[in-house]
Amino acid sequence: MGKITVIGIGPGSLEDMTPRARKAIEKADTIVGYNTYIKLIESLLGEKAVIGTGMMQEIDRCTMALREACDGHDVAVVSSGDAGVYGMAGLVLELLMQEQPAIRPKIEIIPGVSAVNAAAAVLGAPLMHDFAVISLSDLLTPWELIKKRAAFAAQGDFVISLYNPKSRKRVEHIEEIREILLKYKPGNTPVGIVRGATRDDESVTISDLENFTKEKIDMFSLVIIGNSNTYVKGNFMITPRGYKL
Amino acid sequence: MGKITVIGIGPGSLEDMTPRARKAIEKADTIVGYNTYIKLIESLLGEKAVIGTGMMQEIDRCTMALREACDGHDVAVVSSGDAGVYGMAGLVLELLMQEQPAIRPKIEIIPGVSAVNAAAAVLGAPLMHDFAVISLSDLLTPWELIKKRAAFAAQGDFVISLYNPKSRKRVEHIEEIREILLKYKPGNTPVGIVRGATRDDESVTISDLENFTKEKIDMFSLVIIGNSNTYVKGNFMITPRGYKL
Repeated sequence: MGKITVIGIGPGSLEDMTPRARKAIEKADTIVGYNTYIKLIESLLGEKAVIGTGMMQEIDRCTMALREACDGHDVAVVSSGDAGVYGMAGLVLELLMQEQPAIRPKIEIIPGVSAVNAAAAVLGAPLMHDFAVISLSDLLTPWELIKKRAAFAAQGDFVISLYNPKSRKRVEHIEEIREILLKYKPGNTPVGIVRGATRDDESVTISDLENFTKEKIDMFSLVIIGNSNTYVKGNFMITPRGYKL
Repeated sequence: MGKITVIGIGPGSLEDMTPRARKAIEKADTIVGYNTYIKLIESLLGEKAVIGTGMMQEIDRCTMALREACDGHDVAVVSSGDAGVYGMAGLVLELLMQEQPAIRPKIEIIPGVSAVNAAAAVLGAPLMHDFAVISLSDLLTPWELIKKRAAFAAQGDFVISLYNPKSRKRVEHIEEIREILLKYKPGNTPVGIVRGATRDDESVTISDLENFTKEKIDMFSLVIIGNSNTYVKGNFMITPRGYKL
């Protein structure tokens, strides 16, 4: 029986991948993941077997990862950011637990620097108080539930982080979310947009709730919307923790 | 003019600290942080000046960090987990921006593996869907606001992560939160409690919303409460992403 390790490789640069993650990749003989992520760790791959995108869909790919582990391989499934946040940790575990206990390979989840933390660091300190993380992708979640969550997060005055804010096919969702948030948050609430944090093509924009959807946003962007105390000063977006200064 | 770097050192083990964070600590000549965090990185300190707990409170300590940077030092302010989540990034930036632009030292924020991601990895994959992060410490936040946020997060069916769930002086807050959550979530909702993730004394408990406050919880614990789809199987707490399996 082999082993399966689900690894958060961090936001992009190898400088932001933990030693635990790196060693697990180096030790594995088989690597499974999207081609985009595989490319980020290309320098670590050597002669390893690689199961990438295109060959098959997510469920098939994770099923194959499990099968390889059952066959005695040391398999690393890689996700960008943290594998436990909209990553592969859940799917691998779900599939694993459908197998009979006797034939389940060992599993380990290795956390990574999450995309939201990397984006926040680039913006300054927008997450310094209670925050909510919401994905706008409705491929696996009903759109009505996503809108409901956005409304409750806004009413709770959470800092709100949006994953998958927009894709080529899905351009109107972010406008709908903006309108929902504007019911509860003022138009001048700071909004940060970060694309490719720590990668070569990193870009950062600071806007506000009224105007942010006019900026360039795509599926690689992460959007962070402030709470009622968040402010912008210099190039930084700052949510106060509450110290009296 | 020196430099100030605010560094998320990760959940505890050096194996979970990024190379970028480690190099910044090694390069700095002055280290600022709680003694507990300083101890975690003891092996990296060498002959560096250390400004730790006990000497002064958070605001004074960050002010001193800024002064040292203004005096030409390369100062590293360390926070456990990610410095941007209830850490020192916000306070340092707030103080920095109160200074005149001409005398502000350069600042960099280096993200780390956040405590919530480390705890989630130990539990399995509880954060796989939209989640909210709430601190129960009312030192800097009105208790009424914290309760309000918990109620909205529950109504939005978010996975809910609680930081600072309990301290020696604050033992009833977690009971109040449990009662609020029980208005919207069933008593058998899975709850994970992780203490010291990745550290030598790591402990993990899986319980449910009805019973979890009977378990050992302290200020070093992180509590993760599932959404309506979260389940426990084997030793794992899993929130499905939504794939049809």
